[in-house]
Amino acid sequence: MAPRLYCCLESGNCYKIRLLASLLDIHLDEVQVDLFTNAQKSPDFLAINPKGELPALVDGDKVFTDSSAIMVYLAGTSRDRGSETLPSSYWSSDVVEQAQIVDWLAFAASDIHVGLAKARAIMAFNWPAGASEETLSEARRKGVASLQILDQRLRKEEWLALGRSTIADIAVYVYVALAPMGGVSLEPFPAVKAWLERVTKLPGYIGPDGLDQPLQNR
Amino acid sequence: MAPRLYCCLESGNCYKIRLLASLLDIHLDEVQVDLFTNAQKSPDFLAINPKGELPALVDGDKVFTDSSAIMVYLAGTSRDRGSETLPSSYWSSDVVEQAQIVDWLAFAASDIHVGLAKARAIMAFNWPAGASEETLSEARRKGVASLQILDQRLRKEEWLALGRSTIADIAVYVYVALAPMGGVSLEPFPAVKAWLERVTKLPGYIGPDGLDQPLQNR
Repeated sequence: MAPRLYCCLESGNCYKIRLLASLLDIHLDEVQVDLFTNAQKSPDFLAINPKGELPALVDGDKVFTDSSAIMVYLAGTSRDRGSETLPSSYWSSDVVEQAQIVDWLAFAASDIHVGLAKARAIMAFNWPAGASEETLSEARRKGVASLQILDQRLRKEEWLALGRSTIADIAVYVYVALAPMGGVSLEPFPAVKAWLERVTKLPGYIGPDGLDQPLQNR
Repeated sequence: MAPRLYCCLESGNCYKIRLLASLLDIHLDEVQVDLFTNAQKSPDFLAINPKGELPALVDGDKVFTDSSAIMVYLAGTSRDRGSETLPSSYWSSDVVEQAQIVDWLAFAASDIHVGLAKARAIMAFNWPAGASEETLSEARRKGVASLQILDQRLRKEEWLALGRSTIADIAVYVYVALAPMGGVSLEPFPAVKAWLERVTKLPGYIGPDGLDQPLQNR
């Protein structure tokens, strides 16, 4: 039975999983959980993920409740297209390389989350409701700081970690690609723009359709 | 040469690394970076960690800039006390187990960070400066929600992942232990309290001295 992904089309963290699954040609059974009706806080869903957050992945008796962990699991237990070797090149069996990837997963979960992702959430969803101009400005300021760090890195490297595309890139990609939705321009960051373009060229790439104008879906 | 840890005595994220190093009997050269004078934003330190955050670890040509990545690196490249086997039991060579640990690293970086850690930062450091009562209440509410999730888990399991102490426990431990500093009581959570006590019994344990009353150090 295919692993079951609990997700929501408007969520960037859920898109990370759908993108990785497509890149690695993994079939997932997707179950939509509607954040707009707070379905992620329903007793049924809390029995699956007590955090009441998306995405969550259930594969047999294994449950993962964060996009980072789901990506490690899927990339680590899957093969690259046309390869027999485990894990796929999106994860690594070498611990030093694992730590290098985890450093960028953490960057996505902290720096990107409080900056670019937050500015987008305020602008696109009015979430959190009634956020002040100051809160939005602060999120944008942090977003720009993240882009400066990324641009510095990507002026020297084609990919964030290990010299190849890994889940580090997938974790960081989406909220950077959607930065303009939060009012943060990518124009001052040519190395970031070139990297975004490289991601779209990966075999199996799918775009963040539906995420770029989320409220028009409702 | 020993790995060099850039840290600050008042930081819980830095303490995670010092605790893990002590548990695994790893020697680190500690360099204090004073957050109270914003030394983490100095050009010298930004050349080491462009994020301008603590902790950071430098080992030869390798640099890690987040506590999760540093813990994966140290636990993955070290042996348990008296053992010859790599990695130590605080990390795993099995990818499913790695993903299970990463799920809790993410819990520490997101749920704990925006709840218990934030309430403590507001109460102990007035950081961010002038946070509203509403912001503090929201952090406490999220903190209590995290404790409920942990208590539910720890009523069934002695440790957060894999049935043994791992970096999952170390990542979550400190801001839970310090929850009362943010005005969040641990009394309603007996399974959490018993787990905190178990952590203190691990061979090599060192306490969060200096973190429990941070402003008195200055």
